[in-house]
Amino acid sequence: MEEKYMREAIKMASENVKNGGGPFGAVIVKDGLILGRGVNRVTANNDPTAHAEVMAIRDATANAGTHDLEGAIIYTSCEPCPMCLGAIYWAHISHIFYGNNQLDAARIGFDDSDIYKQLALPIDKRRIPETQMLSKEAIETFDLWQATENKQEY
Amino acid sequence: MEEKYMREAIKMASENVKNGGGPFGAVIVKDGLILGRGVNRVTANNDPTAHAEVMAIRDATANAGTHDLEGAIIYTSCEPCPMCLGAIYWAHISHIFYGNNQLDAARIGFDDSDIYKQLALPIDKRRIPETQMLSKEAIETFDLWQATENKQEY
Repeated sequence: MEEKYMREAIKMASENVKNGGGPFGAVIVKDGLILGRGVNRVTANNDPTAHAEVMAIRDATANAGTHDLEGAIIYTSCEPCPMCLGAIYWAHISHIFYGNNQLDAARIGFDDSDIYKQLALPIDKRRIPETQMLSKEAIETFDLWQATENKQEY
Repeated sequence: MEEKYMREAIKMASENVKNGGGPFGAVIVKDGLILGRGVNRVTANNDPTAHAEVMAIRDATANAGTHDLEGAIIYTSCEPCPMCLGAIYWAHISHIFYGNNQLDAARIGFDDSDIYKQLALPIDKRRIPETQMLSKEAIETFDLWQATENKQEY
């Protein structure tokens, strides 16, 4: 835990507010170097996935030349939402440090508690309906994947 | 539910396998038009967030000129992972149709069940440690946000 990295994430978050973005920033550190940075550009970029953590992961993996951030640490100015936490797990980040928490975020209008609740529900109980269809056709893609040699698994 | 859109997502997924990508594809449809498309480019782009659904959302919102896909439908060749499901909730997509399910994906090496489990756990029980720090400094960004006029909320 190094305070300078969290201060950097907080500073980026505040600067982003002044630049028309949301109040969130994140930096990813590995081996004592900042590997990637991100700020919330959801409304600025018309991209609902442009949360600070996702942007920082995309930046860090592009810079590192690998999709795998094993051993890296993320310093984010606010506790990650479920989308970002999912991205952090896929990226194999090793530790999450956060400044503000979920409740702080909810108080200023960024409430992700319902999304956490929805994801924990069985698929047929969630607010957005999920319906399976054409499964016999879809499985053919997976059969193709299995039959493909030299594929890059992860 | 229109089978032609799911067939398109499946076709894109199979073509993506032939192009060195993962076996996943998605299309987003609104008002009878395909608004966005995506395929899995995690290893191809060195981007762990480049799942088919995230890519399709980014494409659709860029094309629509808004981060809000209210009323849109996503057809994805496989049941969404937690990251993608979070993105779908943030994008306000109205219905999810999927081809393969989680178990099919796990059978070919894409197992997201642990990530679903981790997200449903209390924060102090999750596999990747999450530690709060510098909360008194971080809240200053939220205070700045609250004091900012003409900000774009979402």
